[in-house]
Amino acid sequence: MVRTVRLAVIPGDGIGPEVVAQALAALEAATAGTEVEFEQTPFSLGAARYLETGDVLTDADLDAIKSHDAILLGAVGGTPGDPRLTGANIERGLLLKLRFELDHYVNLRPTVLYPGVASPLANPGDVDFVVVREGTEGPYVGNGGAIRVGTPAEVANEVSVNTAYGVERVVRYAFAQARVRRQRLTLVHKTNVLVFAGSLWKRQVDAVAAEYPDVSVDYLHVDAATIFLVTDPARFDVIVTDNLFGDILTDLAGAISGGIGLAASGNINPDGRFPSMFEPVHGSAPDIAGKGIADPTAAIGSVALLLRHLGETDAATRVERAIADDLAERGDARRSTAEIGEAIAARIAAASVTVP
Amino acid sequence: MVRTVRLAVIPGDGIGPEVVAQALAALEAATAGTEVEFEQTPFSLGAARYLETGDVLTDADLDAIKSHDAILLGAVGGTPGDPRLTGANIERGLLLKLRFELDHYVNLRPTVLYPGVASPLANPGDVDFVVVREGTEGPYVGNGGAIRVGTPAEVANEVSVNTAYGVERVVRYAFAQARVRRQRLTLVHKTNVLVFAGSLWKRQVDAVAAEYPDVSVDYLHVDAATIFLVTDPARFDVIVTDNLFGDILTDLAGAISGGIGLAASGNINPDGRFPSMFEPVHGSAPDIAGKGIADPTAAIGSVALLLRHLGETDAATRVERAIADDLAERGDARRSTAEIGEAIAARIAAASVTVP
Ligand SMILES: CC(C)[C@H](C(=O)O)[C@@H](O)C(=O)O
Ligand SMILES: CC(C)[C@H](C(=O)O)[C@@H](O)C(=O)O
Repeated sequence: MVRTVRLAVIPGDGIGPEVVAQALAALEAATAGTEVEFEQTPFSLGAARYLETGDVLTDADLDAIKSHDAILLGAVGGTPGDPRLTGANIERGLLLKLRFELDHYVNLRPTVLYPGVASPLANPGDVDFVVVREGTEGPYVGNGGAIRVGTPAEVANEVSVNTAYGVERVVRYAFAQARVRRQRLTLVHKTNVLVFAGSLWKRQVDAVAAEYPDVSVDYLHVDAATIFLVTDPARFDVIVTDNLFGDILTDLAGAISGGIGLAASGNINPDGRFPSMFEPVHGSAPDIAGKGIADPTAAIGSVALLLRHLGETDAATRVERAIADDLAERGDARRSTAEIGEAIAARIAAASVTVP
Repeated sequence: MVRTVRLAVIPGDGIGPEVVAQALAALEAATAGTEVEFEQTPFSLGAARYLETGDVLTDADLDAIKSHDAILLGAVGGTPGDPRLTGANIERGLLLKLRFELDHYVNLRPTVLYPGVASPLANPGDVDFVVVREGTEGPYVGNGGAIRVGTPAEVANEVSVNTAYGVERVVRYAFAQARVRRQRLTLVHKTNVLVFAGSLWKRQVDAVAAEYPDVSVDYLHVDAATIFLVTDPARFDVIVTDNLFGDILTDLAGAISGGIGLAASGNINPDGRFPSMFEPVHGSAPDIAGKGIADPTAAIGSVALLLRHLGETDAATRVERAIADDLAERGDARRSTAEIGEAIAARIAAASVTVP
């Protein structure tokens, strides 16, 4: 029996459409001849759409997206400083809105330094960890405000909101990941300064840790965590952290493992009430858009995460292996977006389909 | 005529007293035979004092410290997890309290990769920048709170408070630094998410930039800034940023430039209404305390910043040169705290005193 997955595709702006095209080719290669098929609906969303229509994300868009099983997103955001975009915050109004409305409380960001990939670190060691970043709370909630704007007496506040409900569920997800990985979980926060939020996170981790005696737990302040990411990244297995700290740590993690051109991510609603969304960590990079030189590897890696999330383990593994094999032989050769995408798709197709 | 500087000395906990002893020896060597002398008052503050007396920082302590011209601090904080310290937050109650009460609105953190020093980066390039971290606002204000603590309905908030008054003054300080350095200033924030605080920072930088046509200005999101700190740290000259982002970036900056054992800092009240405070970026490191192996270089570097702040330029330069020369010849040899301190002090003493 064929399983049909309704996939919402949001190519977005800049290099988004270029890398998504290759990601879809990889998806096609990974599922051809299998029992799963993807029924795609393209959504034209992002800065370009805003400039055309004045809309960032309408209720109708959101409803339509919700009726899908999963989402593949390229990148959204216009050219920085474009005066026509002043006042429109594509990131908040589209990307973060999707994460919040679709209750993507797990932002899953694996970091692997693949053989053959150059790291800016002299001795990176064996880098293989995953950041479980909270996705629906913290300083990202948008609960800020300002008074007397533009005067010398202006005050601008930002409120980080953290709940037991929100922290516990992401902490549970992280422990479950640690159990099936290397049984090591690191909480990253800034408990000595952000004492209320920090205490909540600490207590939730301690409470869930009691149910996971097999998982060893440690804690790092976010500033210390950045040090270890460059001096001893191999120490990490699962990092669980707040929305903002996760944002910062995962860009750094991407950098030390070969660049965010390789970093895939999943915005996951583990309950399955809403479609999860898979996207490369990189942005729309308007400076290189249209040149055909963007690296599609992160977008293709996001397809692997999508397949794994859907339980299509065989297909996911073939995509992952194809990426690893391509990276191992990539060397310094400068290849185009299409060349990399085609090489990976060919490897996926060549791998034999395991009969389930 | 002899100038007498009243110096409050807070050795603190852990390795604090060990590194401060060497810092004071360097200060002595740098000022012997000059027209400046330091009248020292030791203050017993930190976790040890709290365990003895139950006090973290009394009003009387604070008043006494205020009557000094400057402060030298080692490190404060007890052993993590010490049950006797539960409920006492030495960082908030002592270190941050001093920064806030003494209006240390500039937290100045220079980062230099000295010749001879190993970086974890394979190709660090010419690393020489300074982070001007705001010191009295942002998420550090302590304006948080929680309800229903310990229940599944707990909500814990943290409020970041930012004012035109507070941001403008630190931005002005940063531009003045950029003018006498390499005329390049980078604002780091997260304007696409923290829109109210971000907009305030952006507008203050734009406004002051108009008075500094000689300084080129750019902007990076904090996540992107961490990438550049490992892929191209030489691009930075002056970074101006918020209290929390500055905390994170300066630990990372310390790591790429040889470790926070080398990173000095100044908590500065540029108005001169309150004494400024100089301290190594590292903490009290209870795990290596008492072993005589802590690196005193960051503490000695903090003495150089102290001397420069006081206008004692010759003495400051001699301390800086002695540090650089020692680092250049240090190699891999493991030396004790005292050996490093004595070697640097000897170099300072050997350098001829320029007659002013
Ligand atoms: C574009 C931006 C809002 C986003 C974030 O801060 O989460 C991005 O940096 C990311 O990490 O996905
Ligand atoms: C100890 C802690 C409160 C402090 C900070 O966060 O500012 C430290 O990390 C620093 O950078 O000086």
